[in-house]
Amino acid sequence: MAARIKMGMVGGGPGAFIGAIHRLAAGITGQIDLVAGAFSRNADASRAFGAELGLDPSRAYGSYEDMFAAEASKPEGERIQCVSVVTPNDSHAAVSCAALEHGFHVICDKPLAGHIEDGLKIADAVKKSGLLFGLTHTYTGYPLVIEARRRVANGELGAIRRVAVNYLQDWLSREEDTGASKQAAWRSDPSRSGESGAFGDIGTHAFNLVEFITGERITEVAAELRAVVAGRQIDDDGAAMFHLANGGSGLLAASQVCSGAVNGLEISVYGDKASLHWQQEQPNTLTLKARNAPDQVLKAGANVGYLSPEALAVCRTPGGHPEGYIEAFANLYAAFAGAVREFPSSTTVDGVADIEDGLNAMRFIRAAIRSSENASAWTPLAGIEPRT
Amino acid sequence: MAARIKMGMVGGGPGAFIGAIHRLAAGITGQIDLVAGAFSRNADASRAFGAELGLDPSRAYGSYEDMFAAEASKPEGERIQCVSVVTPNDSHAAVSCAALEHGFHVICDKPLAGHIEDGLKIADAVKKSGLLFGLTHTYTGYPLVIEARRRVANGELGAIRRVAVNYLQDWLSREEDTGASKQAAWRSDPSRSGESGAFGDIGTHAFNLVEFITGERITEVAAELRAVVAGRQIDDDGAAMFHLANGGSGLLAASQVCSGAVNGLEISVYGDKASLHWQQEQPNTLTLKARNAPDQVLKAGANVGYLSPEALAVCRTPGGHPEGYIEAFANLYAAFAGAVREFPSSTTVDGVADIEDGLNAMRFIRAAIRSSENASAWTPLAGIEPRT
Amino acid sequence: MAARIKMGMVGGGPGAFIGAIHRLAAGITGQIDLVAGAFSRNADASRAFGAELGLDPSRAYGSYEDMFAAEASKPEGERIQCVSVVTPNDSHAAVSCAALEHGFHVICDKPLAGHIEDGLKIADAVKKSGLLFGLTHTYTGYPLVIEARRRVANGELGAIRRVAVNYLQDWLSREEDTGASKQAAWRSDPSRSGESGAFGDIGTHAFNLVEFITGERITEVAAELRAVVAGRQIDDDGAAMFHLANGGSGLLAASQVCSGAVNGLEISVYGDKASLHWQQEQPNTLTLKARNAPDQVLKAGANVGYLSPEALAVCRTPGGHPEGYIEAFANLYAAFAGAVREFPSSTTVDGVADIEDGLNAMRFIRAAIRSSENASAWTPLAGIEPRT
Amino acid sequence: MAARIKMGMVGGGPGAFIGAIHRLAAGITGQIDLVAGAFSRNADASRAFGAELGLDPSRAYGSYEDMFAAEASKPEGERIQCVSVVTPNDSHAAVSCAALEHGFHVICDKPLAGHIEDGLKIADAVKKSGLLFGLTHTYTGYPLVIEARRRVANGELGAIRRVAVNYLQDWLSREEDTGASKQAAWRSDPSRSGESGAFGDIGTHAFNLVEFITGERITEVAAELRAVVAGRQIDDDGAAMFHLANGGSGLLAASQVCSGAVNGLEISVYGDKASLHWQQEQPNTLTLKARNAPDQVLKAGANVGYLSPEALAVCRTPGGHPEGYIEAFANLYAAFAGAVREFPSSTTVDGVADIEDGLNAMRFIRAAIRSSENASAWTPLAGIEPRT
Repeated sequence: MAARIKMGMVGGGPGAFIGAIHRLAAGITGQIDLVAGAFSRNADASRAFGAELGLDPSRAYGSYEDMFAAEASKPEGERIQCVSVVTPNDSHAAVSCAALEHGFHVICDKPLAGHIEDGLKIADAVKKSGLLFGLTHTYTGYPLVIEARRRVANGELGAIRRVAVNYLQDWLSREEDTGASKQAAWRSDPSRSGESGAFGDIGTHAFNLVEFITGERITEVAAELRAVVAGRQIDDDGAAMFHLANGGSGLLAASQVCSGAVNGLEISVYGDKASLHWQQEQPNTLTLKARNAPDQVLKAGANVGYLSPEALAVCRTPGGHPEGYIEAFANLYAAFAGAVREFPSSTTVDGVADIEDGLNAMRFIRAAIRSSENASAWTPLAGIEPRT
Repeated sequence: MAARIKMGMVGGGPGAFIGAIHRLAAGITGQIDLVAGAFSRNADASRAFGAELGLDPSRAYGSYEDMFAAEASKPEGERIQCVSVVTPNDSHAAVSCAALEHGFHVICDKPLAGHIEDGLKIADAVKKSGLLFGLTHTYTGYPLVIEARRRVANGELGAIRRVAVNYLQDWLSREEDTGASKQAAWRSDPSRSGESGAFGDIGTHAFNLVEFITGERITEVAAELRAVVAGRQIDDDGAAMFHLANGGSGLLAASQVCSGAVNGLEISVYGDKASLHWQQEQPNTLTLKARNAPDQVLKAGANVGYLSPEALAVCRTPGGHPEGYIEAFANLYAAFAGAVREFPSSTTVDGVADIEDGLNAMRFIRAAIRSSENASAWTPLAGIEPRT
Repeated sequence: MAARIKMGMVGGGPGAFIGAIHRLAAGITGQIDLVAGAFSRNADASRAFGAELGLDPSRAYGSYEDMFAAEASKPEGERIQCVSVVTPNDSHAAVSCAALEHGFHVICDKPLAGHIEDGLKIADAVKKSGLLFGLTHTYTGYPLVIEARRRVANGELGAIRRVAVNYLQDWLSREEDTGASKQAAWRSDPSRSGESGAFGDIGTHAFNLVEFITGERITEVAAELRAVVAGRQIDDDGAAMFHLANGGSGLLAASQVCSGAVNGLEISVYGDKASLHWQQEQPNTLTLKARNAPDQVLKAGANVGYLSPEALAVCRTPGGHPEGYIEAFANLYAAFAGAVREFPSSTTVDGVADIEDGLNAMRFIRAAIRSSENASAWTPLAGIEPRT
Repeated sequence: MAARIKMGMVGGGPGAFIGAIHRLAAGITGQIDLVAGAFSRNADASRAFGAELGLDPSRAYGSYEDMFAAEASKPEGERIQCVSVVTPNDSHAAVSCAALEHGFHVICDKPLAGHIEDGLKIADAVKKSGLLFGLTHTYTGYPLVIEARRRVANGELGAIRRVAVNYLQDWLSREEDTGASKQAAWRSDPSRSGESGAFGDIGTHAFNLVEFITGERITEVAAELRAVVAGRQIDDDGAAMFHLANGGSGLLAASQVCSGAVNGLEISVYGDKASLHWQQEQPNTLTLKARNAPDQVLKAGANVGYLSPEALAVCRTPGGHPEGYIEAFANLYAAFAGAVREFPSSTTVDGVADIEDGLNAMRFIRAAIRSSENASAWTPLAGIEPRT
């Protein structure tokens, strides 16, 4: 077995949902050791939390700046090789740029940033450093999402005509939700979340899933973003029509105020030969439909003979032994760990959203906001970024 | 048991899908006798077909004009009381107006017409005659669609925030489909179908279902209609964002070129308290979802205690004995037959789309086309009709 | 179109569930006219009900004896040709035998009788008369049940290894249900229902479905029948292991006291090559599964290219337009009407359970009871009938 | 955070499916360090594999005897505290007894042993040592299985009347499967697997699930076990009727030759008030059904307000973020780790099958075999064990 990767984490202190998931996911890979962290801006809290995680106390830092400086001064082979960035959106750029500048590869929670300006800063740092950068669009780590992409790429669906993607939740459906948890508070605060709420938080997942599965870029969007619940300063609900580069059309809805929706990410892709259908809450089935043919229900599993090598490679259990969200997340970390090991002979992280995917999602958000402010006019993603 | 209603039919000759369904549906009610018909423009063919149906040969006519004249001259009690219009869209206006002018109530296949101008002619004739007019938007005849409407009206969902409705098929997905059947041929021909293809044919069902269940009018639309398959002169695929009168938003897709979709009509309605979900291909379940509560799956059946009286009234079988499309259709005919019997003490057909519903669907089509031609600009339905 | 068949009905008066279904089903075929009936043992009530149904008052009789005598004396072409027997089990034999003796074909509600002794009387009458006899095991009228049978017969499943069939309901789950309705009362009364309750009423459906789909006879059974609810005199719940003639094994459960089960008939058949799965409450899908292959979900519909001619022949609507229980029932009546027309050149009713199927179900009930009384000992069906 | 537990493993070398799962599961808990192992009977292979896992080379042993001796001689605080036994069935007794005798708690893969004689040896060793013993019946680690148990215990279902449990697979459906993999080879070999094949391997899971959820012991069984595929020496398919201590009845099928079944464990439990339904392949939903009430679909998730504390305690992710088989497994390990930490102030492992559960499963297997050999006669579990 290959050497294990040493990782530091920024953010993800006590009570942080996504930080805990990142740690579980990294742990499952069996390829990554979390050896350092700046879990909290309070040094004592960070140290205490590091101790809970079994870290060497000297490597639980009170700030990412301290961590990067201290770790960079350690001898190679001892210092961290990469950083997991799991802070709120507003600090993705500062943390990621600093990490890259100190020579650490970065794996960052989605979205890339709160707005494209920050995203472009990260893109610059990635380019300058030549280091690896991965964005954890979790859902692309599911075996059957990877299978879906393969089936499209193989031409089984034919030319893509229409896409429908929804990402609906209800955890912000009430006024009192806004400040009810850390997660809700920063997501509802434009100074932390960025220029978009629901669209930025989960609409980017939906966007990324479309691009990942279809292999097509979304080129323009006609959108309507709304703050439905009283007091919200940024969108908590919205919808869009969009165009794919190949001429296909689609609908996207993203909302955190749809009562009864829990984590309802689902996608249908219709080609001129066949269609595919996947729902995140039942991730181990993928349905293929064609005209005048029985529907085919594919299932995940490491021993499932009809799946592609790419999908099989990310299954841990045989068919009928369900894997889930944490394992999908772990698949991203495993790919990242593999890339860290191969670096610099390879400089890409196969199967993980990269800086360009992240930027395109930022363009999507900016274009959706512009469209929404402009009576839902069709707005291209290309050229949306600020002139610098 | 009340007296049976005497009905004539226009259209629905040999090989006509929808005419046969109308006859089955009317028959199931046990309240309607089909006693006359102008099934074909060829008098011999009409007569032969009438004979197959067991009609008195003298009442199988070569034209609707002949039928209306002959029947109107018969004594009351013997002549037809109502007419079922099951011709292609382009003749709905002429046939319906003539029927109404001769004193016959009309039940007409959807959509109201090929365009709003024709629709307004029918509206005039309805108004002048004071007679009954019903439009067979089949899907509103399902018990659980009626239950869905009741649940919204009772406030169980709270204020409606978001609607998603799809009506996707694939039977016109290929170039060679255009002329492959009578049904395909006239639907693809703007001179028969009217100004819209898929949107007119099935988008109007989706539109009507939204208005029926939510009890809200759709007020404006931003749409994109497309002729995807080579050679198509009218839309075979399209999508729209829309607004409800109450401020809710929605997405609608209608397509006849989505591979693998058979008769995929499905709707989700999200309120601030709960949501509901129904799919036509599994019509005997209705799912209600609320935040932090188990999903509830309701089932149709004449002995199901938790259903509303309105839903129970249209169930024939006890729970677990599935009813389907023909029974849903029959529920519309039963309502119509009841109204004919009550006429003129009552002049509405409860639970069946009326002339105003039909006109609004025509406005929707016209607004969607205008929007589509105008870069998907938001286009109000109100005031879309031609000034006369 | 072929001549319509004239039918009389025995039983099925006001409030009778199954009689109303038989009439609807016969009506949908478009091939049968109900022209006479002995709907009630009270002549006035029978006449009143006949009037509601639109019958000639002179042909609504106060007893089946009167009906058969009067109808038999009418000239051919005017008199009824067949009789629908929809009385409780205890009179199936008397009514059916009398009908056959008067020269009328019989279509009888299931089960054949309350016990095999009565069943054998009918068998004698069928044999002597040479007339048609059909038993309405409704569920074999569903298109996808017919498809299932075809797939097995074609060898797609290989040799049948294991069958699982359940028919579970809950409408008799409480003590107070016993006398709560006519239907409950006679089914819970051994003098009306026969020697078995749930097993006789719905276990025979399950039994018949196994034999119909697999094409194999059930040869022996190890059963346990129970009266679970206090005060029940006959089984309201039970289960059995069984053997098929080909060596396959199976499990069967039939209960009317399983809370939450509505009309839960479902079957899985496992062969050495593939398996099939069908549920009555979702009758328009049939799932085929094979090892290391995607599940295939077949759908009903008159235009579904991959279905067998036998299945297509009983579909009225195109794919995605659900048909249900009444249509399945109608398919049995249509087959029966066709056979009546062809008689005597053909003397079988294809696709409808015949006297031998009915007798075998009686043998199954008797064997299950014997087994249950004998500590669930394996009990062969063959030879179970009384020596005469 | 509490101190981490030091664990050794016996078995689970390269290519072993279940060993890898045990390691992943233990790892996810964040409470267990695998520090020693006897992964193979070949010392070099064991060492090489230990190195892959990152173990100290001196603690990868060539036999469990060596491991127990060496570890027992280490100072407390350094030596292993517990042993995970993941060998084939035939060595469970020897390994577990030795571990217990050396003072190590044991967590053992199911079934307890190949036959009850071996099981009783383990029971003796458990009793003598006073140490912890847990059996990994994985499926009881799923949150919604725990919820199911709570709902029954709370009386929501009322008195249990009927249970249906199936565990069907197809990976041994062909003759050539017998020796096709390590897993298949030992399971098909009575000298390794024990007196039963499919019933022992997966029937015990089904058995345990019934007892776990209902809280009732299975008291007697009428079974038929078969070796369906040519050349099999032990059962690869079988079915049984069974009785619960409370008077309820049930059906159980277990087969590894049912084509199209992947890992099809599913259970329905019917009480006099309500029923519940769970399928392992969709583990994150649990359906509750009651008469004349909408079905309720419960979902797993750490923030799902309607779940019991017991179920919530084993969820890692919020609703809609699926967990799976590995997490269910990890829940057993987490409970075991907690018990090791609490020992000896507590001597039970809450939520994990214990020695008595394991013995009862052995009794079930023995009784099923006896019944099967005795024409499926009802055979009590009590008293089935050999007199000693």
